[in-house]
Amino acid sequence: MFHFLSSLYRKYADRGMDNSGSFDSLHHPSEDDDDDEMVDIAGATLDFSNTDDDPPLSSGDYEESSSSRAAGMNGNGPGKLVDPLEDPLAGLGTYEDFNTIDWVREKSKDRDRHREITKKSRQSTAALLHSVSDAFSGWLLMLLVGLMSGALAGGIDIAAHWLTDLKEGICLVGFWFNHEHCCWTSNETTFQERDSCPQWQSWAELITGTSEGAFPYIVNYLMYMVWALLFALLAVTLVRAFAPYACGSGIPEIKTILSGFIIRGYLGKWTLIIKTITLVLAVSSGLSLGKEGPLVHVACCCANILCHLFTKYRKNEAKRREVLSAAAAVGVSVAFGAPIGGVLFSLEEVSYYFPLKTLWRSFFAALVAAFTLRSINPFGNSRLVLFYVEFHAPWHLVELAPFILLGIFGGLWGALFIRANIAWCRLRKTTRLGHYPVMEVLVVTALTGVLAYPNSYTRMSGAELIAELFNDCSLLDSSQLCGYKQANITTEAAVGNSLADRPAGEGLCTALWQLALALVFKMMITVITFGMKVPSGLFIPSMAVGAIAGRLLGVGMEQLAYYNHDSFIFKGWCSPGADCITPGLYAMVGAAACLGGVTRMTVSLVVIMFELTGGLEYIVPLMAATMTSKWVADALGREGIYEAHIRLNGYPFLEPKEEFDHSSLTVDVMRPRRSDPALAVLTQEGMTVGEVEALVESTHYSGFPVVVSQQSQRLVGFVLRRDLLISIDNARKRQEGVVSASQVVLTEHAPPQAADAPPHLRLRGILDLSPFTVSDHTPMDITVDIFRKLGLRQCLVTHNGRLLGIITKKDILKHMAHIANRDPDSILFN
Amino acid sequence: MFHFLSSLYRKYADRGMDNSGSFDSLHHPSEDDDDDEMVDIAGATLDFSNTDDDPPLSSGDYEESSSSRAAGMNGNGPGKLVDPLEDPLAGLGTYEDFNTIDWVREKSKDRDRHREITKKSRQSTAALLHSVSDAFSGWLLMLLVGLMSGALAGGIDIAAHWLTDLKEGICLVGFWFNHEHCCWTSNETTFQERDSCPQWQSWAELITGTSEGAFPYIVNYLMYMVWALLFALLAVTLVRAFAPYACGSGIPEIKTILSGFIIRGYLGKWTLIIKTITLVLAVSSGLSLGKEGPLVHVACCCANILCHLFTKYRKNEAKRREVLSAAAAVGVSVAFGAPIGGVLFSLEEVSYYFPLKTLWRSFFAALVAAFTLRSINPFGNSRLVLFYVEFHAPWHLVELAPFILLGIFGGLWGALFIRANIAWCRLRKTTRLGHYPVMEVLVVTALTGVLAYPNSYTRMSGAELIAELFNDCSLLDSSQLCGYKQANITTEAAVGNSLADRPAGEGLCTALWQLALALVFKMMITVITFGMKVPSGLFIPSMAVGAIAGRLLGVGMEQLAYYNHDSFIFKGWCSPGADCITPGLYAMVGAAACLGGVTRMTVSLVVIMFELTGGLEYIVPLMAATMTSKWVADALGREGIYEAHIRLNGYPFLEPKEEFDHSSLTVDVMRPRRSDPALAVLTQEGMTVGEVEALVESTHYSGFPVVVSQQSQRLVGFVLRRDLLISIDNARKRQEGVVSASQVVLTEHAPPQAADAPPHLRLRGILDLSPFTVSDHTPMDITVDIFRKLGLRQCLVTHNGRLLGIITKKDILKHMAHIANRDPDSILFN
Repeated sequence: MFHFLSSLYRKYADRGMDNSGSFDSLHHPSEDDDDDEMVDIAGATLDFSNTDDDPPLSSGDYEESSSSRAAGMNGNGPGKLVDPLEDPLAGLGTYEDFNTIDWVREKSKDRDRHREITKKSRQSTAALLHSVSDAFSGWLLMLLVGLMSGALAGGIDIAAHWLTDLKEGICLVGFWFNHEHCCWTSNETTFQERDSCPQWQSWAELITGTSEGAFPYIVNYLMYMVWALLFALLAVTLVRAFAPYACGSGIPEIKTILSGFIIRGYLGKWTLIIKTITLVLAVSSGLSLGKEGPLVHVACCCANILCHLFTKYRKNEAKRREVLSAAAAVGVSVAFGAPIGGVLFSLEEVSYYFPLKTLWRSFFAALVAAFTLRSINPFGNSRLVLFYVEFHAPWHLVELAPFILLGIFGGLWGALFIRANIAWCRLRKTTRLGHYPVMEVLVVTALTGVLAYPNSYTRMSGAELIAELFNDCSLLDSSQLCGYKQANITTEAAVGNSLADRPAGEGLCTALWQLALALVFKMMITVITFGMKVPSGLFIPSMAVGAIAGRLLGVGMEQLAYYNHDSFIFKGWCSPGADCITPGLYAMVGAAACLGGVTRMTVSLVVIMFELTGGLEYIVPLMAATMTSKWVADALGREGIYEAHIRLNGYPFLEPKEEFDHSSLTVDVMRPRRSDPALAVLTQEGMTVGEVEALVESTHYSGFPVVVSQQSQRLVGFVLRRDLLISIDNARKRQEGVVSASQVVLTEHAPPQAADAPPHLRLRGILDLSPFTVSDHTPMDITVDIFRKLGLRQCLVTHNGRLLGIITKKDILKHMAHIANRDPDSILFN
Repeated sequence: MFHFLSSLYRKYADRGMDNSGSFDSLHHPSEDDDDDEMVDIAGATLDFSNTDDDPPLSSGDYEESSSSRAAGMNGNGPGKLVDPLEDPLAGLGTYEDFNTIDWVREKSKDRDRHREITKKSRQSTAALLHSVSDAFSGWLLMLLVGLMSGALAGGIDIAAHWLTDLKEGICLVGFWFNHEHCCWTSNETTFQERDSCPQWQSWAELITGTSEGAFPYIVNYLMYMVWALLFALLAVTLVRAFAPYACGSGIPEIKTILSGFIIRGYLGKWTLIIKTITLVLAVSSGLSLGKEGPLVHVACCCANILCHLFTKYRKNEAKRREVLSAAAAVGVSVAFGAPIGGVLFSLEEVSYYFPLKTLWRSFFAALVAAFTLRSINPFGNSRLVLFYVEFHAPWHLVELAPFILLGIFGGLWGALFIRANIAWCRLRKTTRLGHYPVMEVLVVTALTGVLAYPNSYTRMSGAELIAELFNDCSLLDSSQLCGYKQANITTEAAVGNSLADRPAGEGLCTALWQLALALVFKMMITVITFGMKVPSGLFIPSMAVGAIAGRLLGVGMEQLAYYNHDSFIFKGWCSPGADCITPGLYAMVGAAACLGGVTRMTVSLVVIMFELTGGLEYIVPLMAATMTSKWVADALGREGIYEAHIRLNGYPFLEPKEEFDHSSLTVDVMRPRRSDPALAVLTQEGMTVGEVEALVESTHYSGFPVVVSQQSQRLVGFVLRRDLLISIDNARKRQEGVVSASQVVLTEHAPPQAADAPPHLRLRGILDLSPFTVSDHTPMDITVDIFRKLGLRQCLVTHNGRLLGIITKKDILKHMAHIANRDPDSILFN
C-alpha cells in the first residue's frame, strides 16, 4: 500500500499539485471480492491488479517513467499528452485536415499551459513578464486584427469605388481618382451638380467627344460591358488559379470551422490575398453581390494569420476559434460600421462557442476596426456607418400593418430564394454546368450587364441603390425618387412644413416603374449569382430587394395618405401638409425583412439597423418586420441560407440552435449496429505492436476504446488513431528493440515479462483516461445536447458499466439526416 | 430472442417512435462469455439476465407495465418519469426548497412535452390550435412581462418622485403633484425659473410664511428629517413584517436562482408587492441607494408570477428560468431605458443558461417594457433614457490619459468598496448589530439626512445628481456647475462659439468644493447602506461617486486647457475659444468606471452608456475607462459585488465565468472520501422495501446510485431520494400488499418469486437510466466544465467501468473554497 501511495504522490507531483489533503480522498471498492479478476484469470491475462494495486516500484521504474515523460508520453487525461510548453513529439495531439477537433481536450490543454505559466511566474522575473505578456497577448491580437481588418476594408472600399466608376468613365486629372474625388478636385462644382464636372469624362465623351445621342450611349454601354467582363474574368481566373477557397461568401465554411471542423488553407494567406483582390473585382463587375459577407471571411483570414504570432493561439485550436469568433464580429463591424451589431452577429449567427471573455474582446476588436475604417474615411463623409439615415417624422401605430406586410414579403422571398438558390447550386454540382465555372461567371456577368445598364437603379452599385432608397427626400433633393410636385399652395398648412407629403410627380412615376423592373431583375439574378466561383456576399442584394419593395410600398402609402387624408385610417395623424409617411423608413424595414428572411438573423439584424439610424424610435417597426419575416420564412423551411449551404456541401455541422426533437435512444444511433462486426477495441495489455498495427490498418476509425479485457469490456480509456500511429512509428524508429512482437502496455505499470522477450512499448501517455460516456438508454436529445455543449468528437456508450459502442458527431448528423428523410451519406466533406 | 425484440418494440412504441430501421441498430456484447453472470450467481441473486435477455413476456406482463405507466411510473431516462402532459403522482420530479435543479432533466422533460403536443396536433384541430397557442405562449408571456414591468417601473418612478419632493414641500393645488408638475400647472413659470412657483411651498413657507433666514431653514431641515425617518421606518417595518426577501438589490439571489437553485417565495407575489412599495419609500428616504437593481428583482417577480398562467412555464423549472433571464433584461431596460444594454446585462451578468431563443425574446420584452415606460412618461420629457445627454465636442486622443485615470480610480474604488461593504456585512452577520435592523436603518437614515441636507449635491436624489453632472453646460444654464465667467471678449475666436472653454467663476468654485465633500460622503455612506434590510440598488450610488470624480477631473482639465492652451499637450486641438473639453463626458466616463469597478460589467455597461448618449463617438473613452477599471479591480480582488454577496450568503453558485485553474482530479473531490463509509447504493433487485427505507432514513443524500449487485458495482442508474420516498409512500397507501418485506425491483422485468411472497414494488419508472458519469482520472477542470455547461446536480464517478463515488455541485464548491483557503462549510444556505 505504501507504494500505491508513493506512485500516486508522484502522479500528483507531476501534475504540479500540492498534495496536502488529497490522500484522504481516495476510495476504491474493495478488490478482494472482485468478480472480474476471477474471470480474467480464467479467460485471459491478468487485467486489473496492476491498476489499483501496484506492484512494488523500483527507482529504475521511476527512471523509466521519467524518461518516457520527457519523450512526451506522460499524462493523465485529455490534453495531458505533452508538456504544454514544449512539443517534443511533433504531431501528437494535432488534427488532420477535414477532421473535427475535441473542444474539451483543447481547452484542457490550454488550461494546463496557463497553469504551467502561472507556476513558473513565481520563480523568476522573466517568467513573470512572460506570464503578463501572455495574459495581454489576447488583447494585443484583437488590436492587430481590428487594425488590419479595418485597413483592408478601407482599401477594398476605395478600390471597389474606383473600379466601379472606371466602368463609366475616367478622371482626366488622374486616372486613380474615382468620379466623386475627381469632381472634388474641381472648383467648378456646385452643390447640386457635384456628380458632373469637366475633369470626369465618360468613355463616350473621351472617344466620340460628345455625350448626347444614341451613338455615345452605345459606346458607354459597350465600354461598361467590356470592363465588367474583364473584371469578372480576372476575378474568376484568379480564384481558380490561386485560391479556390476564396469564392462565395465564406460564412457557411466559417460557421463550420468555428463549430470545430478543420479546413486547412481556408483561412490562409493566399485565400486572404486573392479574396481581397477578387472581391474588389467582383463587386466592380456589376454583378448582383455584396462585399459584406466576404469581409467576414477576410477578417477571419487576418485573425488566423495573426494567430501565428502568438504561441497561445497558434497551437490551440479552441483558443484560435475564440479569436475567429471575434474576427467575424470585426467583419460585420467594418461592413456596416456597426460594432455592437457585429458582436451580436457573431454571437447569434456564426459562433459556436462564445464565452463572455470573447464577447468583450470581440467588442474591442470591432470598435478598433470601425474606427480604423473611419480614419481611412473611404466614403468621404466621416461617417462610421455604411448607410447613414436620419428620419424626421415618427411612425404611427397604423403603419405597423404595412410593416408587417413587408415582413411577410421578406419571409416569402427569403424562403423562396433559399429554395431556388439551393436548387440552382445543386444543378451546378450535379450537371455539366459545374465544369465551366469561368464561362458561367462570364455569361452571368454579361446577362447582368446587358439587363442592368439601361435601368439607372440596377446600373448603380447595390450599396448606392440602398443608400438612395433609404434616403428621406428633402426639398433640395434632385434625385428622381424625390420628384414630387411642389406643395399645393392652397393648402395653407403645407407652407410651413417643407417636408410634408406631396403628390407624386412625373419623375417619381418613372422612378417607380424603373424600381419595379429593378425589383424583378434583382430577385432573379441574385439566385444564379450567389454560389458562383467568385467572392459574393448576400447581404447587399437581399437588402436591395427589400429596400426596393419597401420604397415602393412606402410611396404607395404616402400617396394613399395624401389623397385620402380624411379616411378613418389616416384621420387624426396624417392631416394634409403633415410629414406623416416616410418612404425611406419603409425601405429600411423592407431591407431588414428580406435580409432576415434569407439569413434568419434576429437580434443582430435589428441592432445593425438600429446602429444605422441611431434612434430607438424606429426599432419597433424593424422588430415587427423581422419577427414576421422569420416566422413566415421558418414556416416554409427551417434553414437559413448559410445552414442550407452547409448542408449542400455536406459539412459536419451540428446546428446549435435547433432542438433535437425525436425520441430515439443513444443505442439506436451508436455504432456498431447490430449487423456490424463487433467494436474494434484495444486491451490495456496483452496485445503486441503487430496486432495493434493490424487492427489500425484494418479499420478507418479515428480512435479506439481501451478495455480491461475483451471479456469484461470494462472501459479504461480511449486512444486516438493518429496518436497511436505517430507513437508506434516514433518508437520503432527511436526506441531500441521495439518490434512487432513487443507488447503494447497501456497500464500504469508494465506487467512482469520473460527476460528474453522484446521490451514493452508503453503508451499510457497517449491514453485518454477520461473519455466521455453515456449509457445506452440515454435519450438522443440529451446526447445531442452533450455533444453540442461540450463540443465532443465522440462519446462511448456503456450498458450497466460495460462498453457497448461508440457514437460520433458524424453518427448523430447521419441519424438526423435519416430522420429528416435526407440521404445520410451526404454528410461529411466529399 | 423474439421476446427480446418484442419488448424492445413495446419500449419504442411507448416513446412514440416510428420503429422502422431501429432494430438493426442494436448490439450488445455477447452474453455467453459474460464474466459477471458467473460471479453474480455465486455471490448474490441473478442480476443481468433479465435486462438484456428477457424472460418470455405474457400479455399480463404487458398489462401490468401499461398500468404502471398510467400511474406515472414509466420512463426511460431523466424526465421520462411521467406523462409530460399530465401529472398523476403529485410531487414526482419536483424539487424541495433550497435545492438545485437538474437542467438536463428539466429540458428533457420539456422536449417530451413538446413532442407530445406536436404528435397530438396532427390528430385534431383543437390539438393543433393548442400546439400553436403553446408555441406562441412564450411570446405572449414576454409581452405581458414587458407591459407589467414597464407599468410598475413607471409607477415607482412617479411615486418616488412625488415622495422625494414631499420631503421638501407640498403643492397647494393638489398634494399629489410633485414639484415639477405643480409648477407646470402654473402659468407664471418662465423657462429659467421653472423650479419655483407660488403653488409649490416648502414646509417652512407653509409653517412660518417665509423662506428666508435661519429659522425657516431649520424648519425645512427638520421636516426633511422627519419625512426621511418616516419613510425609512415604514420601509424596514414592511420588509420585516411581510416579505424578508424584499430587502437588498436581489441580484445575487437572482443570479443564484438562475443558476438552478430554488428559493421558494423569493419571486412571489408578496415579495413583489412589498418590494415595490418599500422601494419607493427607501428611495424617497434620501438614503444613498438606487432603484435600478431592485427593478431587476421586481421584473423577475412579475415574470415568475405571470409564469403561472402558462403550464409550459409553471411546471418546468428550466423554462421558467429562461423567462426570468429575459425579465432581468427587462429590469435593466426600464431602469435605464436601454433595451439592448439590458439584454446584454442579462447575458453577461445574471444569466446562467441563455439560449439564443431567449436572447431574441428578451430583446422583445425589453423593448415592450421600455416603450410602456415611455408611454407612461414618468420623467415628463418623452425620453426613453434615464439620463439623456448630448455632447457637442468630440474628444481628443490626449484625453485618453485622464479617462484611463478615471478607470484606475473606478477600479480602486470598486475593489475597496467591495472589501469594505463585505467586511461591514460580515460584522452585521456575526455581531449583535444584526439583531437591530430597524434601528440600523433609522440610524443610517438619520446620519445620511443630517449630513446630506446642507450640501445641495447630496440633498438631491442620486439620479438628479448624475443627470446634472452629465449635463453639458449651455450658455443659458443657471446651474451652479455652469458658473463660468463670461467669455473674454478680447479673444476674438471665442465670439463665435458660445460653448467654448471658459475660466471658472465663483459659482463653479463653490460647486467644486461641495462636490468634493459630496464625493467623500457618498463613498462612505454607501458602504454601510448597501446590505441593510431595505430594497437598495448599487447602480446609482456607484455611478454618482464616479460622476462626481469625473466632473471634478473634467473641470480641472478644462481649466488646465484654458490656462495652458499653448503648452505642447493642448496645442493644436485646444485653441482658445474652442470647445475642447467636455466635463460632462468626464462625469459619464467616471460613472462607467466606478460602476464597472463595483459590478465588473463590461460590454453591457458600455452599451448601456452608449444608449444614453446615442453616439458611437464616445464609446472609445467609455471602453478605455471600463477596461482599465476592470483590470485594476480584478487585480485587487477577483469578485464583483454580486459574487461577493453570493459567497457571503453561502449560496451554491458555480461561477460560469471563472476558469477552474487547479490540477486536482475528480477522485480527489468525490465522495466518499477514503475515511468515509462506503457509498450508499441500491441494488437493482434483492432489496426489500424495509431495507430501502432504512437506507434512506440513515442517510441524508438526495439520491442513490443503483448498481447491478453490491459485488460488481456496475452502474445501472440513479434514483432521487424524493422520488423514492414519494413512490414508496404512495405504493404503501394505494398498492395492495406492499409491505416492508416486499422486494423493490428496479429491473425492467420482475424476477420470478415464490407464490406466497408479498408482491414486488416496481420502481423502474423513477429510475434515471442515464446518469452522468465521469472516470476517476478526469481532471477537475473538465468535470467543472461539464457541471457548468450541462447544469448538473450530481455526477457519478467510475473507475474502469465500476462505480467508485459520486460528485455533486456542493462537493465542487467546497473543493473550490478549500483551494481558495476559505471555509468549505460556508457553502450552502444556512
